Amino acid sequence: MTTEEAGWAQLTARMRELKDLDGLIGLASWDVETYAPSGGRRARGAQQATLEAVRQEKLTDPGLWALLEGCSPPDPVAERMRARLKERVERARRLPIALVRALAEAKNEALASWQEAREHRDFRHFARPLAALVELSREKADAALPASGDRYDALLEEFEPGMTAALLTPIFEELQAGLRPLLDAVRGARPPPMAALDGRFEDQKQWTLSLELLSALGLDMSRARLDRSTHPFTETINEDDVRITTRIDERRPLTSVYSTIHECGHALYEQGFAKEHHHSPLAEAPSMGIHESQSRLWENQIARSAAFCERWHPRWMELFPEQLAGVTPAQLYAAVNAVRPGLIRVEADELSYNLHIMQRFQLERALLSGELPVDELPGAWADASEALLGLRPEGDLEGCLQDIHWALGAFGYFPSYALGNIFAAMLIDAYEAEQPALWAQVAAGELTSLLGWLREQVHTRGYLKTANETIREATGEKISVAPLLSQLGEKYGALYGL
Amino acid sequence: MTTEEAGWAQLTARMRELKDLDGLIGLASWDVETYAPSGGRRARGAQQATLEAVRQEKLTDPGLWALLEGCSPPDPVAERMRARLKERVERARRLPIALVRALAEAKNEALASWQEAREHRDFRHFARPLAALVELSREKADAALPASGDRYDALLEEFEPGMTAALLTPIFEELQAGLRPLLDAVRGARPPPMAALDGRFEDQKQWTLSLELLSALGLDMSRARLDRSTHPFTETINEDDVRITTRIDERRPLTSVYSTIHECGHALYEQGFAKEHHHSPLAEAPSMGIHESQSRLWENQIARSAAFCERWHPRWMELFPEQLAGVTPAQLYAAVNAVRPGLIRVEADELSYNLHIMQRFQLERALLSGELPVDELPGAWADASEALLGLRPEGDLEGCLQDIHWALGAFGYFPSYALGNIFAAMLIDAYEAEQPALWAQVAAGELTSLLGWLREQVHTRGYLKTANETIREATGEKISVAPLLSQLGEKYGALYGL
Repeated sequence: MTTEEAGWAQLTARMRELKDLDGLIGLASWDVETYAPSGGRRARGAQQATLEAVRQEKLTDPGLWALLEGCSPPDPVAERMRARLKERVERARRLPIALVRALAEAKNEALASWQEAREHRDFRHFARPLAALVELSREKADAALPASGDRYDALLEEFEPGMTAALLTPIFEELQAGLRPLLDAVRGARPPPMAALDGRFEDQKQWTLSLELLSALGLDMSRARLDRSTHPFTETINEDDVRITTRIDERRPLTSVYSTIHECGHALYEQGFAKEHHHSPLAEAPSMGIHESQSRLWENQIARSAAFCERWHPRWMELFPEQLAGVTPAQLYAAVNAVRPGLIRVEADELSYNLHIMQRFQLERALLSGELPVDELPGAWADASEALLGLRPEGDLEGCLQDIHWALGAFGYFPSYALGNIFAAMLIDAYEAEQPALWAQVAAGELTSLLGWLREQVHTRGYLKTANETIREATGEKISVAPLLSQLGEKYGALYGL
Repeated sequence: MTTEEAGWAQLTARMRELKDLDGLIGLASWDVETYAPSGGRRARGAQQATLEAVRQEKLTDPGLWALLEGCSPPDPVAERMRARLKERVERARRLPIALVRALAEAKNEALASWQEAREHRDFRHFARPLAALVELSREKADAALPASGDRYDALLEEFEPGMTAALLTPIFEELQAGLRPLLDAVRGARPPPMAALDGRFEDQKQWTLSLELLSALGLDMSRARLDRSTHPFTETINEDDVRITTRIDERRPLTSVYSTIHECGHALYEQGFAKEHHHSPLAEAPSMGIHESQSRLWENQIARSAAFCERWHPRWMELFPEQLAGVTPAQLYAAVNAVRPGLIRVEADELSYNLHIMQRFQLERALLSGELPVDELPGAWADASEALLGLRPEGDLEGCLQDIHWALGAFGYFPSYALGNIFAAMLIDAYEAEQPALWAQVAAGELTSLLGWLREQVHTRGYLKTANETIREATGEKISVAPLLSQLGEKYGALYGL
């Protein structure tokens, strides 16, 4: 082995080690949300903080830096691996280890308090830990991207490399300008006949349906799991172990089924990275927006389509014959696309969903800038909710306590959801241009062609390219809200007879 | 803070960090045995190896050594913490990191192959990985205790500090000399009337019973879990999170119930460490024999007593009225103490159990010395089984594939089980001497007094003292097989009318 080869081998061993630690951190957080006994959660927080500190030490190890600077990657893909890792290391090196540990501990504190606050339906239990986390996130922003000039951008960078609030603002404005009139028109229109879904949909049957959907969508269950948690999520433990969770409400069967499909989209992506990228920084999404595009595409474009509802209608009827007596496929389709004033983001219809995101985008920027003191969040939330959605939450549970993100310190994550919706619409348009039989495929339950196309265009590329490049190459277009607005206009125009 | 205080504070932070890593390694191995999807287990192996390497790096960090040498513990307990950690660090420093990583990887390989071999009921699938692990264990022994002169002793030291094969041999000989005649007499005697237990005992009801037993024995379930796995075990994640597993066989209800009680004994110990010892090396058993004494005491001395069977008889009858129709408490007691020729250690009666241990003690020493080539293990196992138990396994599943220990690289662990039996008998005698009402307490379901005594005498002491010191202080005696032999003679004499 030449010195150059030895250097590259050492660097790939470091990549593997970091990937292992990422997965172990994922395991610890999956466990705390699923099976950890309640009494052990606080002690677990310290353990997670320790593991994050270990990762930070590994990232900032001078030996790694020397390898990154000194080694010669054998080919362009290897060079890309080196460059991606170098970006991550540069970012990590700007964060003092004490700050990383403080953030990890503050997150655990905040997460526990958020859960308490939800139990008490009272934001005040969460206010202090949230304020601490906001303060630490400011420090993190200042350390991570001192030159950016905007703390929000510095945090956004972690989820959407290259994206800024200034770039997002006109995109969101255009989206909002398209969505508001459509939403108003739908709200003013007479709703189509739809399934009432007001019976009791037995937990175990919903669970069965969820598992069947995962297999039907193409998830390899020998390398995946479905569990339950308060807030559904996807966690990757290693290349052959991706875990999703759902929550089942017997009174609201669509919640669990569609959140399972959403997480399945994430998991399909994680199962689809190229084998030769495993254990490297290329086995990753180039942005969270791209990741969300995979979950939203399966959840909305596919599973909320008429063809999908038609395909699955018989199974719904088999499992819930009494609850759904007399329901037609069209009524099921109308029900899964019902537009109803709603305060909860994860249950929002496709028209109001992005307005929820804009509200959070606005509030989290205000929290970080200090313009909005943490104590005033509940009121500001209610005001923004009223302005954007026309709805005012009655309590904190339906208001500012509904999302887990800030309790995890994930300021700057919400825009990824809207970007995901935008990208998903662009991707499905591009696929349909190549495969006009798309809806016939969906109606026939043949989803492998679409999955294959996504594997080729998105999954196997991993982080070879940036988010913008990936979308550009898959769709031939620059980021645009037009496909999403046009798809929504068409769907809701037809459903609500606009 | 003075420099001395600062040094001690730094050392306790290191102790905490190591404890966190121990628990995270425990979490990863708990997960792989319980919930990890089958496809992800090999990749997980690499992750576990990474985490073990991180721990090894932390243990051998020169900064830690400097603190151990330079700091001034503020009191004798702190001094004990320092000394215990120093022993562990000294041991770790003798192991090259490459060997630690190779061992971790070989273990994972061996574990996967052991499972495959069990599926195929064929040792040959396991032979090569086992041979690799034996070889690495020899290297480990040579590195860990180069001066010991006996590789087996060097490995035994990890589980039974201060113990050697030479010290164990006469103890085991005395035990064997006492057990064999008793076993032969019992086998020649007419068995008492006993419950047949040959119905189908529904999984869910066994699960319910297991959970009820855990609570009845005093396990705090807000800080514990019960799950299922192929091989029951206990794993501590942190001071408020100890997890046990069981396996349920609908045709053999005693297996799951008694293995649950066994693991509960381990878990009670783990929940009982003194709060002021948490996050330090004192929140540990001084030896695995002491740990096993806690599991065996609850499983055998308590749960296999007439008083306990009488206490739980009504609940058995409630849960399984048809399967147990007409069964009396005495018949249940006879059934849980049935002596039947058996090849499986974990299902062995109290008389043959220790003979199983002696067989493994003999074979694992021969494997390590090289006297027994790995390929010849199945035959040697069968021969030893015939010589010690009078039984010859028909296949590997009932023979050398039955235990997980060697697949985990845990050579030298088996003696701890026999020591646990010996200590358990000594402890229960000591308690009964103080509390003659013991059996009345058990019959009344009042187990808190016994648990309190064990907490005081054993649990809260953790690793303040050595195993021998702990037993000496709790019982006033040196290690002796007399209490065990006398208890067994009395129990089986009465049951089998000897």
